[in-house]
Amino acid sequence: MQTVVPLLPLTATADAPAGQSNGWREKLDDDDLAVLALRNLIFDMCNQNGGGHGGSAIGMAAIGVALYKYVMRYNPSDPEWFDRDRFVLSNGHAAMFLYALNHLVGYDAWTMDQLRGYGSAKTNGYVTLCHAHPEIEDPAVEVTTGPLGQGIANAVGLAIASKNLAARYNRPGFDVVRSRVYCITGDGCPMEGVALEAISLAGNLRLDNLVLIYDNNQVTCDGPLDWINVEDVNAKMRACGWHVLDVADGRYDVQALVATLNLARNNAALTGGKPVFVNVRTVIGLGTATAGTYKAHHGVFDAESVALSKRLAGQDPSTTHQIPPSALAYFRERREHGRKLQSEWEDLVDRYASAHPHLARGFRQRQAGDNGDRWRSVLETLDSTRVAGLATREVSGAILQSMWEAHPALFGGGADLVNSNKVPYDASDVFHPTVGYAGRYLRYGIREHAMASISNGIAAYSPGTFLPFTATFFMFYLYAAPGVRMGALSHLPVIHIATHDSFAEGQNGPTHQPVELDSLYRAMPNLTYIRPCDAEETIGAWLLALAKTTGPTMLSLGRDPVGPVPNTDRFRVAKGAYVVRDVAGAQLTLASCGTNLHYAVEAAENLSASGTLTRVVSAPSFEHFDAQPAAYKELVFPLDGWPIVSVEEYVATTWARYTTASVGMTTYGYSASNASNYDRFRLDAKGIEARVKAYIADLAGRDARRAGWRAI
Amino acid sequence: MQTVVPLLPLTATADAPAGQSNGWREKLDDDDLAVLALRNLIFDMCNQNGGGHGGSAIGMAAIGVALYKYVMRYNPSDPEWFDRDRFVLSNGHAAMFLYALNHLVGYDAWTMDQLRGYGSAKTNGYVTLCHAHPEIEDPAVEVTTGPLGQGIANAVGLAIASKNLAARYNRPGFDVVRSRVYCITGDGCPMEGVALEAISLAGNLRLDNLVLIYDNNQVTCDGPLDWINVEDVNAKMRACGWHVLDVADGRYDVQALVATLNLARNNAALTGGKPVFVNVRTVIGLGTATAGTYKAHHGVFDAESVALSKRLAGQDPSTTHQIPPSALAYFRERREHGRKLQSEWEDLVDRYASAHPHLARGFRQRQAGDNGDRWRSVLETLDSTRVAGLATREVSGAILQSMWEAHPALFGGGADLVNSNKVPYDASDVFHPTVGYAGRYLRYGIREHAMASISNGIAAYSPGTFLPFTATFFMFYLYAAPGVRMGALSHLPVIHIATHDSFAEGQNGPTHQPVELDSLYRAMPNLTYIRPCDAEETIGAWLLALAKTTGPTMLSLGRDPVGPVPNTDRFRVAKGAYVVRDVAGAQLTLASCGTNLHYAVEAAENLSASGTLTRVVSAPSFEHFDAQPAAYKELVFPLDGWPIVSVEEYVATTWARYTTASVGMTTYGYSASNASNYDRFRLDAKGIEARVKAYIADLAGRDARRAGWRAI
Repeated sequence: MQTVVPLLPLTATADAPAGQSNGWREKLDDDDLAVLALRNLIFDMCNQNGGGHGGSAIGMAAIGVALYKYVMRYNPSDPEWFDRDRFVLSNGHAAMFLYALNHLVGYDAWTMDQLRGYGSAKTNGYVTLCHAHPEIEDPAVEVTTGPLGQGIANAVGLAIASKNLAARYNRPGFDVVRSRVYCITGDGCPMEGVALEAISLAGNLRLDNLVLIYDNNQVTCDGPLDWINVEDVNAKMRACGWHVLDVADGRYDVQALVATLNLARNNAALTGGKPVFVNVRTVIGLGTATAGTYKAHHGVFDAESVALSKRLAGQDPSTTHQIPPSALAYFRERREHGRKLQSEWEDLVDRYASAHPHLARGFRQRQAGDNGDRWRSVLETLDSTRVAGLATREVSGAILQSMWEAHPALFGGGADLVNSNKVPYDASDVFHPTVGYAGRYLRYGIREHAMASISNGIAAYSPGTFLPFTATFFMFYLYAAPGVRMGALSHLPVIHIATHDSFAEGQNGPTHQPVELDSLYRAMPNLTYIRPCDAEETIGAWLLALAKTTGPTMLSLGRDPVGPVPNTDRFRVAKGAYVVRDVAGAQLTLASCGTNLHYAVEAAENLSASGTLTRVVSAPSFEHFDAQPAAYKELVFPLDGWPIVSVEEYVATTWARYTTASVGMTTYGYSASNASNYDRFRLDAKGIEARVKAYIADLAGRDARRAGWRAI
Repeated sequence: MQTVVPLLPLTATADAPAGQSNGWREKLDDDDLAVLALRNLIFDMCNQNGGGHGGSAIGMAAIGVALYKYVMRYNPSDPEWFDRDRFVLSNGHAAMFLYALNHLVGYDAWTMDQLRGYGSAKTNGYVTLCHAHPEIEDPAVEVTTGPLGQGIANAVGLAIASKNLAARYNRPGFDVVRSRVYCITGDGCPMEGVALEAISLAGNLRLDNLVLIYDNNQVTCDGPLDWINVEDVNAKMRACGWHVLDVADGRYDVQALVATLNLARNNAALTGGKPVFVNVRTVIGLGTATAGTYKAHHGVFDAESVALSKRLAGQDPSTTHQIPPSALAYFRERREHGRKLQSEWEDLVDRYASAHPHLARGFRQRQAGDNGDRWRSVLETLDSTRVAGLATREVSGAILQSMWEAHPALFGGGADLVNSNKVPYDASDVFHPTVGYAGRYLRYGIREHAMASISNGIAAYSPGTFLPFTATFFMFYLYAAPGVRMGALSHLPVIHIATHDSFAEGQNGPTHQPVELDSLYRAMPNLTYIRPCDAEETIGAWLLALAKTTGPTMLSLGRDPVGPVPNTDRFRVAKGAYVVRDVAGAQLTLASCGTNLHYAVEAAENLSASGTLTRVVSAPSFEHFDAQPAAYKELVFPLDGWPIVSVEEYVATTWARYTTASVGMTTYGYSASNASNYDRFRLDAKGIEARVKAYIADLAGRDARRAGWRAI
């Protein structure tokens, strides 16, 4: 095994405070002074409130100047410019790097006052753009990063989005989409599975508009990198289909970095079309007392080093948060440059509109996130009798088939189970180098985690331009959960098609039976989890999913057809829960959803026949139900003291807020057939009936609410 | 990028039914007939109940014969033999492969009757060892596999365990631990992040007792592999520190496979000590109508191909489940061979006991899983005043420090945050090639998912021989969740040390604040989630974690010290919930745990002072509380109609079963200081008090239970 030999000594003597000129050329040029200005600002931000993740931000300063002064296309006056290059800081803890650069190049929102907020306690309502990690709500922050590896997957998604738009809309002489994606990673992200999956897929897709810059400082939180990783990273990236460029010393030399990044940008001839990995050797906490050690990862910087750095830049060490005027001018020139870039692009789009009016109309609609409402009328008027009786995954497949045409922003695919997930697609519509990049179906491979996180990147390209979807078995959304969560936290609309959500999953057994996963997704803020029971409700679920623009939706679908449920209604799915079987003088309510509801209905009929008048509630979405007025909620789940029992083949956690008892699971499932498992776990009509009867007998006429909730 | 060129034609003509001798040598030898006997048995198993995952099992038959007849050390008469080689089928859907081999070599439990159960509906209480995926409860199944990638990580864990035991106990002339690990993977697992993380760590650790055999059939569920993956897998494995061996045609030639696997076994001189990757080109569904296509992945095999295969082996095509006597004898010889291996090993251990009596005593205790009870007496008598007032993560660190010595099976480490997780270790006790393999501290690197799954493998080595632990921030256990779940499902004891479980996590913000993760872990069967509030309860939590032998425990710990809680008791943690502040005539109960409990106590004091007599319950473990008798539960959470309000900085789901209302979160958190967030989200004493008062006012004297549960 080839050990990565450190290219630079890992000691504080690299640009050490003791030797002022150590590392720097004798006479500093404008680039050097810009790097120093950036570093000095980061020093001040890190030290202003007692610390932060300054070490890598300091080490990457020359990379930052190369990117923001010379390489990236962006406009500080309009952070939303559609064709800007996208920048992703996957090592999100180095947020100061991004914040300081956003200030220096002159994004309006990123004032010095904002920067002063970094690390503050934020008491008494004080707010700042400077969160500990970049958050997507801030201008000029493309995605929320922090949990390692996510940013790399997001960057792959952004690159896919750009490549797809370019293939669909660019025409000779009219490259209306040129946006490229630059992502920085530290030593941590490439150890994370989600990043490794995304890297593999990016190579497979030959995303030559993606540049991943590796801030290779050979230090992690706990110590030197070689304690935990001695891979030959360049060879690994090449094996994954990436083109690799090396920068042996990325500490100071901006122009060397620019030359390399320009090579990366114009790499089609060089590489034949591959994503590019730029391996830049840096030193964490460069020029400070803790340089090159894990101690530079977090904390404050020593005053002596900071003072020397300021003196080197001609700054007064007794002041903070000052940018030398020449350095400021050096960066702020980007404002004019950016305005010019965007203006040229707008001219180009205008000429494009003359030359290709039909295409341009589509392009501008996509740019505006205007996806029309044909999808809604199609869904609202869909004849559900055509698909009645089918498994909900089959119904979903039929809907998706019609949505490909009706919803222009739909883009996505599955993790190698799409025949089972019922995701229909046309072979000519595949996004793949051998087919073309205009396709809207993406084969994610067996990479569930990256699938979710890449989808977030696609959704983050521009609001409404894409509506990504993913697909796999519900159970395997546990693999994808960190990505699903980041989408929910970031308010990114993505539709997750989770099939095989019940015992009817082909006898695969407890490894595939998601008895506890709903508890996660029903608790996850801003993730809408919907579990429809039949064709009508599946249409209703898709209506909600397509209408949601502020976050992801998970459609929890069954593999097999189930028995009928009366009175289901696509439009009432939006209520979250509603009565499907009413009865005057009810003495019991059964509440259920998905593949379990039909058993609850059957049990209710039997219970009613045997003297316990039973009504039934369909509850496909707790989130929507919780948003209803109290009066409606009480109509659905009366507070009259009669028992309310939920029925679901999951561990009942969230149900307890609505019910007096729950028929559910308390263990894992079993590898056996659909019907035998409902019998085995007493979740078929017979089992429900017996459990409910025992519960009612035990209540012995008492008020069910006074008796306390129980799993029965 | 180098595309993997298919080594064999991907058509049904490879060993096609049409040409009987196609692929096979003119005159079949014993190995060939054994391969055919295995294939024919798999055909029968797959077809007996209408299908299954037969295609890869068929394609791997020659590999199976090589492993089970020539390469692996095991004893069919004693599947628990301590020094057996471990076999892991990471592509667990190919379970028939393992089941058929277990029958052929004569494991007692694996009768033909058991094999007939594969794919059966399992109605009327019918049971079989033949689950759809291998399950650890079955004899001669080392780990439960199915969710892709997990098995590779488990295998890495098994190899770590063996290597550690060998380093601790082997002495010149006494290799009492020689156990090696063989793992088979299909095309799927190596795309999964968990496998990629584990592969990287295995290379870093130079685990030369591990052989990963790649069943390279270039087909996945959805289609040909090159749709989704065109990596140069050999180059990637080499870059990760593995030695790579190729088998260009693994369809028939058992001896070629044996020669290669023997090279892999004796690889120290060859590789300098690396894990070995054996890339074997196979054909899915070899010799059937769907050979080489995704259709062979799942389903039944065509009768004509099955008949031809049986005729080729001299079997009567009209019969099923028959093993030709010569083939059966060929395999069953392994029984005598295995007995001899084990007997020789037992003799060796006896001689070892004479030569190294002290070591041998330790070895036999580890083998028996006998870890004494010194850990218990240390914990039971630990003076908590020594650590009172410290953050629970600090207390946990102090406990772990004493447990290294008191609990011989403890083995583990963290995912690059151990300074924050407070995992103390000695630099000389690190498990690493540069230090040695006798160490018990393992640096997992930034690989949370693999960390959990590797820990499962370590725990699975032999019951009680290891008690693995892991450590990272609570939020990042979402990355690890599939591994944690597999451990819970597999009844493997692992301790997960989850720190930074609250707003007090260093201002990292919503990406690091686990508002919904408890909902997953509190619902996960057989995972004990414990959230202690102070030193006493942290001791109690460790007592429970170390005592649990049937599954994992998660210790949810805080970063910062919090205010005092009265009457906490290490021994009452086992009750799950108990009263810490009692008051006669209570009109309100507040229930809380962890970092929130002290605020609840403060609020209770204020509420009591202002006229609402308030008692307080500490509820560190819902699982333990749910196991208490109903009478105890009612003592803790009275059914008298007075309000019971939970207080926790998470989305309240599971709490609803005990309470009438919950003070919790309904959104993500915020990047701000500890104190400011409790104020911001109204979760400090003041906020709790105000929310509870509003709730009580709204109740207006009504019975709280009759009013229905609500988030307040």
